[in-house]
Amino acid sequence: MMVQQERAARTRQSLMRAAAEAFAEDGFVPTTLSTISRRAGVSNGALHFHFENKHDLARAVEAAAADTVRAITVAAEQRQDSALQRLIDATHALMNSLDEDAVVRAGFELVGTAPRRGETEATDLRGEWQHWIDMVLHTAKDNGELADGVSAAEACTAVVAATVGFEVLGIKDPKWVSRRTLSQYWELMLPRLASPERLPELVPHGPGPAAPAHTPHP
Amino acid sequence: MMVQQERAARTRQSLMRAAAEAFAEDGFVPTTLSTISRRAGVSNGALHFHFENKHDLARAVEAAAADTVRAITVAAEQRQDSALQRLIDATHALMNSLDEDAVVRAGFELVGTAPRRGETEATDLRGEWQHWIDMVLHTAKDNGELADGVSAAEACTAVVAATVGFEVLGIKDPKWVSRRTLSQYWELMLPRLASPERLPELVPHGPGPAAPAHTPHP
Repeated sequence: MMVQQERAARTRQSLMRAAAEAFAEDGFVPTTLSTISRRAGVSNGALHFHFENKHDLARAVEAAAADTVRAITVAAEQRQDSALQRLIDATHALMNSLDEDAVVRAGFELVGTAPRRGETEATDLRGEWQHWIDMVLHTAKDNGELADGVSAAEACTAVVAATVGFEVLGIKDPKWVSRRTLSQYWELMLPRLASPERLPELVPHGPGPAAPAHTPHP
Repeated sequence: MMVQQERAARTRQSLMRAAAEAFAEDGFVPTTLSTISRRAGVSNGALHFHFENKHDLARAVEAAAADTVRAITVAAEQRQDSALQRLIDATHALMNSLDEDAVVRAGFELVGTAPRRGETEATDLRGEWQHWIDMVLHTAKDNGELADGVSAAEACTAVVAATVGFEVLGIKDPKWVSRRTLSQYWELMLPRLASPERLPELVPHGPGPAAPAHTPHP
């Protein structure tokens, strides 16, 4: 029984991954359920056991992507005292997910796609992300972490726009969601956003060792 | 004869606008040529006189959007001595076009859409825009307009990402492509990007009188 449940969960995961990849490559509308089941290596019957139709699959992809984004913000919340560092860490984790996880990528892309845009049950991933950034920047402001004259609202506008830009540009070129690009972004932004007292303790490249600044010449 | 040519040009424009609006609302794939001709108020025959198929229309929309973007950068080049001010002015003009012109909006959106993404003849609007920003920021660097320690490349990454973010977010909420949002963005960024000597002469709200800072209470 356990074995069957595990197998069912694995099949569901494969179908969501196959759907995410097919939506990204061919678009939501032209993708058929047979394409998805073939790509996942499961029968049409197995697909229909898990998902009623394509919108049902899209909803599952969006919900899984939203779970990943929420797990990223929760992990960032637990890790750091500084609200600005939580923001830096969460953006790194999100870009890493966008780089590595087709489901997260598709989750963001589907929300903006015309046939899914009108869906009332669709998860508004960009909206949730924006809301979290707004909240963490207001905390930063309240804690005196922002530079004088910088409001949480204007910092939020700049950071939300840039991360959406990285996400969209990263679909065509993974360079945009690389750790190096995002580290350079924070190196540029932090001297403007952070109060001079807090700036020295902030780590633009997020958790883990720093990426090499330059690609070594062979 | 002149009258007929003018009428033909007007019909062509109406068809491109109708196509741009339909692509934005329903997506490229589900939109049919009959939907477009009906929306434009012309016959199917008239549509086929101007455009062979839907991809032909999409190419025309993309090309018209690219013309607008090029006109914006050319106008900015002519208007200002300062490279940074040219960049500010061009971003304002682009956001204004994205707000007001369905063809420009669709031109940017189509490039990122799966069925058009593979098109070799598609105009890479975001790529052209990125190239221009890169060029103008290198000029700013050469002219000593950038702050010490800020490279043209990292400034370009931040500005390109933010403008793509504004463009994409503006599809759902025009607030993101408003003059006020972009003015706030430049007010935040300029003290970091511009050299202290050049900063006082830069106008974050672009050409024309400043927009009111706050919506007046009724």
